[in-house]
Amino acid sequence: MALAPFPLSVAAIVHRAKSGEAEPMDAARQSLAAIARMDADVQAWTHVMPAGALDKLDPARHAVGALAGVPIGIKDVIDVADMPTGFGAPALTSGPATFDACSVGMLRAAGAIPIGKTVTAEFAFRTPGPTRNPHAPTHTPGGSSSGSAAAVAAGMVPVALGTQTGGSMIRPAAFCGVVGFKPSSDRVFRDGMKLTCESLDTIGWYANSVQDAQALADVLIGADVGDTVQTDRPLTIAVQLGNPRTGLCAESRAEIVRACKVLGAHGAQCVPVEAERETALLLQAHDVIMHYEFARSLAPVAQRQGDRLSAALLQAVAQGLAIGAGQYHEMRAAQASLRRSWHALFGGADIVLTPSTPGPAPRGLGHTGDASFNKIWSVLGWPCLHLPTAFSRAGLPLGMQLVGDWGSDRALLAIGRKLHHLLIQQGK
Amino acid sequence: MALAPFPLSVAAIVHRAKSGEAEPMDAARQSLAAIARMDADVQAWTHVMPAGALDKLDPARHAVGALAGVPIGIKDVIDVADMPTGFGAPALTSGPATFDACSVGMLRAAGAIPIGKTVTAEFAFRTPGPTRNPHAPTHTPGGSSSGSAAAVAAGMVPVALGTQTGGSMIRPAAFCGVVGFKPSSDRVFRDGMKLTCESLDTIGWYANSVQDAQALADVLIGADVGDTVQTDRPLTIAVQLGNPRTGLCAESRAEIVRACKVLGAHGAQCVPVEAERETALLLQAHDVIMHYEFARSLAPVAQRQGDRLSAALLQAVAQGLAIGAGQYHEMRAAQASLRRSWHALFGGADIVLTPSTPGPAPRGLGHTGDASFNKIWSVLGWPCLHLPTAFSRAGLPLGMQLVGDWGSDRALLAIGRKLHHLLIQQGK
Repeated sequence: MALAPFPLSVAAIVHRAKSGEAEPMDAARQSLAAIARMDADVQAWTHVMPAGALDKLDPARHAVGALAGVPIGIKDVIDVADMPTGFGAPALTSGPATFDACSVGMLRAAGAIPIGKTVTAEFAFRTPGPTRNPHAPTHTPGGSSSGSAAAVAAGMVPVALGTQTGGSMIRPAAFCGVVGFKPSSDRVFRDGMKLTCESLDTIGWYANSVQDAQALADVLIGADVGDTVQTDRPLTIAVQLGNPRTGLCAESRAEIVRACKVLGAHGAQCVPVEAERETALLLQAHDVIMHYEFARSLAPVAQRQGDRLSAALLQAVAQGLAIGAGQYHEMRAAQASLRRSWHALFGGADIVLTPSTPGPAPRGLGHTGDASFNKIWSVLGWPCLHLPTAFSRAGLPLGMQLVGDWGSDRALLAIGRKLHHLLIQQGK
Repeated sequence: MALAPFPLSVAAIVHRAKSGEAEPMDAARQSLAAIARMDADVQAWTHVMPAGALDKLDPARHAVGALAGVPIGIKDVIDVADMPTGFGAPALTSGPATFDACSVGMLRAAGAIPIGKTVTAEFAFRTPGPTRNPHAPTHTPGGSSSGSAAAVAAGMVPVALGTQTGGSMIRPAAFCGVVGFKPSSDRVFRDGMKLTCESLDTIGWYANSVQDAQALADVLIGADVGDTVQTDRPLTIAVQLGNPRTGLCAESRAEIVRACKVLGAHGAQCVPVEAERETALLLQAHDVIMHYEFARSLAPVAQRQGDRLSAALLQAVAQGLAIGAGQYHEMRAAQASLRRSWHALFGGADIVLTPSTPGPAPRGLGHTGDASFNKIWSVLGWPCLHLPTAFSRAGLPLGMQLVGDWGSDRALLAIGRKLHHLLIQQGK
């Protein structure tokens, strides 16, 4: 691939900024230059900090902290001070936000530099923005966090924030070929972002490596949270390939089979699992919960400015308003109960290995692809990590996701880092 | 008391608006007139809809729905379209909100009329606004939902929304002598409100009767949710009077003793309980979780506009930023585990009966009172219902709260309605 990732890892940027090897703003300047060079083709950004604004920042503040000097893109449903928030619905763009969202404030306090806002599907739902897949401009980058995934894939930033309600973090990671991490629900604060489905919306991030994703987790979740795991022992991996709503293409399946062989050769035990009944219930629960909540969050917008919203969004609102509270709360109860069912479903396994998408990024920019492999885990609120591991014959990214039990974020990242290393070494 | 509640119940307003007995805007007009007459003394409102704005509403929209024509006050941390949101920090007041918060949209869609924004303590924390206790103008109305509780107590509106993070719903209900309901956490959507402590913040409401509070629950939680209970059987009531951080004044204690006698005479079994160890842990968990989250939500404001915030708020932010993620997540784990401990703590009981506050509203407007009896249940996320049942010798409201297991909102309201009826009949 002609695409190159951002030339510096998070650790390298932080080291240079802290040690004085480089000016704290250097990586941000590189980032802005890359955007200026590439974004006409990729269209990942809705707003970028003017280069002059970097000169107004206090360099001392960005020479310290766990993310000193790290430039970062922020999905345009999350507030960044002094930048407009557009929600992927340009007609509704508000004036500049007065304050950073909580997550953005935590990143900035750790020394990171939010350099711009990235394209999102309309209100983080279905109708895509203009972003193209950096690997193939006529193919979707996935959605709704299209801009953040594409910006990292194209090397414009080392890391970027996105959100997931259905498949909005993991699907773009898969289609764009970057590491994508969706933490457990309730782990990353959402103050200052637009909530459209309160029980599902989760902030996550994209990076070029699991190590870089861990650096953000240390800041946004915590470096001293006690859910670590020893990775130098034989792992048990539950492999779930089936999905009642979609198939899996031959190349994606072959890549997972290859992964199981590689991991098996390194001592892991891959155990096929099926949880057909639970998976079907989880997909149904996701449909009901998502539509019920989305409709009630967006109804005030639809009523006032419906003529500025897509037909797909208006239809989803109408569909959701028709769902009764009784059915909704029944599904919330199923969600709560299944959220605690790791042991019953995957007892003994360290992680689940499962497809991120039915196949590589489909052709066309008018849709964002199938999220059936994602909704299951979104409704469970379990952490998911997409690992890009290979390319299809057509040159599109292939990969797979790892899933952990609720709250096992750090363990999942630690395991994922080890496995990713094995899978890409063997894949070359 | 010279104070009179709003002259119409929610059911009466809805009946008149739907049947055509009155214009759908009549109750809202009464409400605006009462505010004009009384608010100079009470100071419950930060913004009130101009009377002319009522003429611009479509009467047909407010002649239908479960809350047809019901005027309602909204705590000023929750967006109402076309009204400014001030967060109790006047220097920060933003321009008019473009859209209703999700909860406000649901009320409006049911026919209610949000007529204004009510005073909140600064960012729903400690530093009070100008509101006075309608029963005694030199006494605190409690906080942080001061304006909403006082507006209902003074008869300016029949119902009003508030929020609770520590004791911000139940404490003002107790001090102002109105029914206050804080639902289970995660039951009422928070999109469009300022989240300061994401795992604690809960939207609730004030009313003149449990029946009126039920009418709002039907809209905001759902009328067809299956957690009802038969109330015409002998109830078992766990009575918890102790608190490691505060005492209980003689008059408040005597009122609870009277209540137990009345309820016992009607077949209820009142069982004293102590859960000293759990209560102490819950209070500690609340401190850690509240400060950790509050600090991270408010840090962006403190950093940019710290000179416009109170010293108490800045100190809380500094205190919270010093708490490590490890300790925070430990307390979150304790919270999650205790949230499921109803059976272990109160097995066999239908509800808990416990003080809402250490005593009636203390003198002074510079503080909002003690929340030690509230934080326990806030961190558990269990639903709480304050019942005003009597007056102290000094003429201040007395009462108590009922608490249910997570998710038992409708059952708690049904039981509360029955018990309130018994308690105020006997109290006259």
